[in-house]
Amino acid sequence: MREFTVAPNPKAANLTEALDGIDHTGAPVTLPVVVEKPLTLFLNGQEIVTMMTIADYPDYLALGYLLNQNMLTLDDEITGIDYDDDLGVVVVRTARETDFEDKLKKKTQTSGCAQGTVFGDVMEKFEEIKLDEEAILKTSWIYALSRKINQQPSLYLEAGAIHGCVLCEGDVPLIYMEDVGRHNAIDKIAGYMWQHNIAPRGKIFYTTGRLTSEMVIKTVQMQIPIVVSRSGFTAWGVDLARQAGLTLIGRAKGKRFICLAGAERLVYDADPEQVPVEAAKHQRKAAR
Amino acid sequence: MREFTVAPNPKAANLTEALDGIDHTGAPVTLPVVVEKPLTLFLNGQEIVTMMTIADYPDYLALGYLLNQNMLTLDDEITGIDYDDDLGVVVVRTARETDFEDKLKKKTQTSGCAQGTVFGDVMEKFEEIKLDEEAILKTSWIYALSRKINQQPSLYLEAGAIHGCVLCEGDVPLIYMEDVGRHNAIDKIAGYMWQHNIAPRGKIFYTTGRLTSEMVIKTVQMQIPIVVSRSGFTAWGVDLARQAGLTLIGRAKGKRFICLAGAERLVYDADPEQVPVEAAKHQRKAAR
Repeated sequence: MREFTVAPNPKAANLTEALDGIDHTGAPVTLPVVVEKPLTLFLNGQEIVTMMTIADYPDYLALGYLLNQNMLTLDDEITGIDYDDDLGVVVVRTARETDFEDKLKKKTQTSGCAQGTVFGDVMEKFEEIKLDEEAILKTSWIYALSRKINQQPSLYLEAGAIHGCVLCEGDVPLIYMEDVGRHNAIDKIAGYMWQHNIAPRGKIFYTTGRLTSEMVIKTVQMQIPIVVSRSGFTAWGVDLARQAGLTLIGRAKGKRFICLAGAERLVYDADPEQVPVEAAKHQRKAAR
Repeated sequence: MREFTVAPNPKAANLTEALDGIDHTGAPVTLPVVVEKPLTLFLNGQEIVTMMTIADYPDYLALGYLLNQNMLTLDDEITGIDYDDDLGVVVVRTARETDFEDKLKKKTQTSGCAQGTVFGDVMEKFEEIKLDEEAILKTSWIYALSRKINQQPSLYLEAGAIHGCVLCEGDVPLIYMEDVGRHNAIDKIAGYMWQHNIAPRGKIFYTTGRLTSEMVIKTVQMQIPIVVSRSGFTAWGVDLARQAGLTLIGRAKGKRFICLAGAERLVYDADPEQVPVEAAKHQRKAAR
């Protein structure tokens, strides 16, 4: 796959809206602001959830959500995905009959954004997943990925108030998704991987958001062995990463990063002092 | 009320955990990491939601969540709040009988964090709320509040990966709550206001998090006329603020800010060029 096979399209007309305001000097300003919309997901006639999203990839979002919630399996045959922009509805149809009435009653809201929910049986599956033990992470890749992703045109650079998630391999960013909720962004990647049959082996998951329990669970669910974040982490996120054998890197910003789990995959091949200082506009999150 | 009547307690033993990791130079490091825990909320025997929280104020969180979801009204008599730390359960009991079986079936997950849910009837009430039209916001207050809140010891400065919300009056920060989910932080403030009978009149709500639709809805629900954020905003958040007559300030960082709604409350009484540059450790969010 080539670099940025999927990249943000910050100039797309429906993703931002020009709004008028007043700045700190009292001067009028007009600026692009990200549009969030409700999207209601149905699986075979059953209403599952309503999400707030930028709605750029409702199909991947729907698929990825269902996969990451164990409502679809990798073997499921999808017979159709219908999206109605006006109604804000996406319907996923499968050959198999599905019924999650009971499942939907029991969910845990997590500390993340948007779809902050994890079902009990997701945790059961979590414990069975074996991540690729041969995967490595060169420190030069961390620096190269951060630089390339920072400099890629994005809704973040255009309008802010948005999270980014990127599926990478080595030092190559492949699929860059953004959304108001970071869980939407990772779910869109999961949906893309499923639809395009992309194996998790050797992949790296990069995110601008914090590594809370749910982001770690989703990364493991997607069988990606390495996660890198510009932001911080919670104790439970780290604990889950250690249980799963996931390599967890946080606060990856400029020359700095901290590895709190799976350090055996790290290969120190770069001199941190040679890493250029990030421009102010790329410093989307504090180093903390 | 005095400044920082409630302030973070970053050294509290149960809020962080010391974890070992490796940094960008390959050196071992030990650092404090925020602990997130599941907390299941019951209202009179009915399970309402499970939230991920730092669990420092389970009682205020429980009350504020129920208030902001219209499951309690300001007139309700609370007969008890029981918290069991081991079980991770908080139970709110009221004199009035409550039944939200139907309500719980229909919720919208928003682009926020943690409790990213808004019920349809919250939107109905939203349209009826009248915010204090006489409230003002001096630009000197924005600068003073940012500086005081930045410099107050916090879990953020200690461990990162956390949001802060502060109830303020004039240039005085009063109630400073932190949580892994910014919705928990605002709900804890709502719970505190209810229990201590603090009127929203003349108050300012300050948050480190983005102003998405849900944060705007909650601020209006709490009848606070002004919201100030270090972070950005979404188009729907701005739209709702304009509908409600809420003053919305985003990207308030250093000397800069942008006002996108309710600018008639702004009083420009400070020279932005006299505002000191923020130290790097306080720059928790990008200016965007």
